[in-house]
Amino acid sequence: MNVKRDDEPVRRIRIDAMRGGQLRSQQDLVVVEEPLEIRLARVAEPGPGRAISITMRTPGHDVELAVGFLHGEGLIRSRDDITSARVCGPTGNVVRVELGADVQLDLARLERNFYTSSSCGVCGKASLEAVHQMLPIRPVSGATSVSAGLLGTLVLRARSAQDVFRDTGGLHASSLFDAHGDLLATYEDVGRHNALDKLVGARLLEGALPLSGCVLLLSGRASFELLQKAAAAGVPVVAAVGAPSSLAIDLAERTGILLVGFLRDESFNVYTHRERLQ
Amino acid sequence: MNVKRDDEPVRRIRIDAMRGGQLRSQQDLVVVEEPLEIRLARVAEPGPGRAISITMRTPGHDVELAVGFLHGEGLIRSRDDITSARVCGPTGNVVRVELGADVQLDLARLERNFYTSSSCGVCGKASLEAVHQMLPIRPVSGATSVSAGLLGTLVLRARSAQDVFRDTGGLHASSLFDAHGDLLATYEDVGRHNALDKLVGARLLEGALPLSGCVLLLSGRASFELLQKAAAAGVPVVAAVGAPSSLAIDLAERTGILLVGFLRDESFNVYTHRERLQ
Repeated sequence: MNVKRDDEPVRRIRIDAMRGGQLRSQQDLVVVEEPLEIRLARVAEPGPGRAISITMRTPGHDVELAVGFLHGEGLIRSRDDITSARVCGPTGNVVRVELGADVQLDLARLERNFYTSSSCGVCGKASLEAVHQMLPIRPVSGATSVSAGLLGTLVLRARSAQDVFRDTGGLHASSLFDAHGDLLATYEDVGRHNALDKLVGARLLEGALPLSGCVLLLSGRASFELLQKAAAAGVPVVAAVGAPSSLAIDLAERTGILLVGFLRDESFNVYTHRERLQ
Repeated sequence: MNVKRDDEPVRRIRIDAMRGGQLRSQQDLVVVEEPLEIRLARVAEPGPGRAISITMRTPGHDVELAVGFLHGEGLIRSRDDITSARVCGPTGNVVRVELGADVQLDLARLERNFYTSSSCGVCGKASLEAVHQMLPIRPVSGATSVSAGLLGTLVLRARSAQDVFRDTGGLHASSLFDAHGDLLATYEDVGRHNALDKLVGARLLEGALPLSGCVLLLSGRASFELLQKAAAAGVPVVAAVGAPSSLAIDLAERTGILLVGFLRDESFNVYTHRERLQ
């Protein structure tokens, strides 16, 4: 296999820019998109393990992405489930995660989840009902409140940490704040689900799950899939710069998440659990 | 199964809107997101067929979505391959597509594709190499040129047709224009890949593929997945309001697509095949 790998999240290219009726050749930066394969194995199991997923992602924080993805799918619960997680393969586009011998792997659940959150039903028994079976996620714990004033500052606080977006305009970001509005982490990716997986994976590897008392800021729209990952990570407050979908609102209502959308400096909409807004 | 179905692309809800320091309860519209199951069967085959995919989509044009999805995956090539395609099931969230007896169904390819474009490797043999095996898509035919002046008018022309976005701010759109800049069709969806699938599926059902001589406008960013679908449909010009990714640029270069990004009224960037810009 002879595949060029971009190690950087951005690539420098030549483009032709049309400005004021003139086309001019110039240098520009674009965000890198590359496939990442996630593989699962048992501790001390030889060989490459089982291919679980491939996702088109921006290189960087690949171990965190893999671990966060597995957490969102309900396959691992804490770092104690993992005996090793590392980048491997000639291209660096594979992460192999080894699970402890006592970690229960519910393969039927795996099929259901993949069938739901991605788009694969080739495997077999999965059906629409599985989507609804999956929905009873545990409610997030703790009744974290957040003030309107604090919400209004989040976008500005996050923006300073979003390097790649500033360079390319091509990335989604997930940012985590504590209850005082202090920025704990920001991750960026060409795929919004990847940005959140990287964030959750990093916190899991630090032993910092569930994310009680935290506020999650999404740079774009709030979909069902993102709320599902947030609920799995136990985030009590989710604020999105863009619009939420109907199913995202349903899931937030059901799991106790305070969901805010269209977040600007001074204005926003509250969709669920307004009682926790101070 | 007792699942409420939203027939409309938008749902009316009550929200609390924070404006100028005041929280007020008001009505608002949100975009509907619901699962759609796509099933494949042979002509005259009894039973529900094989579940191929589930996607989270905005209801509406579901048959077009299913057909466009199957086309993008390389499973069908024209409407002649389809003997019937219809919405079924108690919730209306299932589309069953029947293929003619002589349509070759490459199930190995099916596995590879799902593994690639979604995120499922549970099925078996798929590997990273499959992504690269998939890449040699046929170049788009015809050397359609487009003028800079015409490109500058597309966003405004499309916007007038985007009803749901205007109502909710929550949708992606794919719009198709002819070489004169006349709008042929616009489809919206909570998922950008779904919007393009609906557009391609509708044209396929009209017998209007490949989309030679057409210009595709994407309301957001241009990812690898979207360029892959555009190339499969034979679109020679793709213009995106947002940024393209590195892999999207690679695919456009390889398949002969003129790719434009950051399209505003008078300004845009040309990433590939500039020779076809007049």
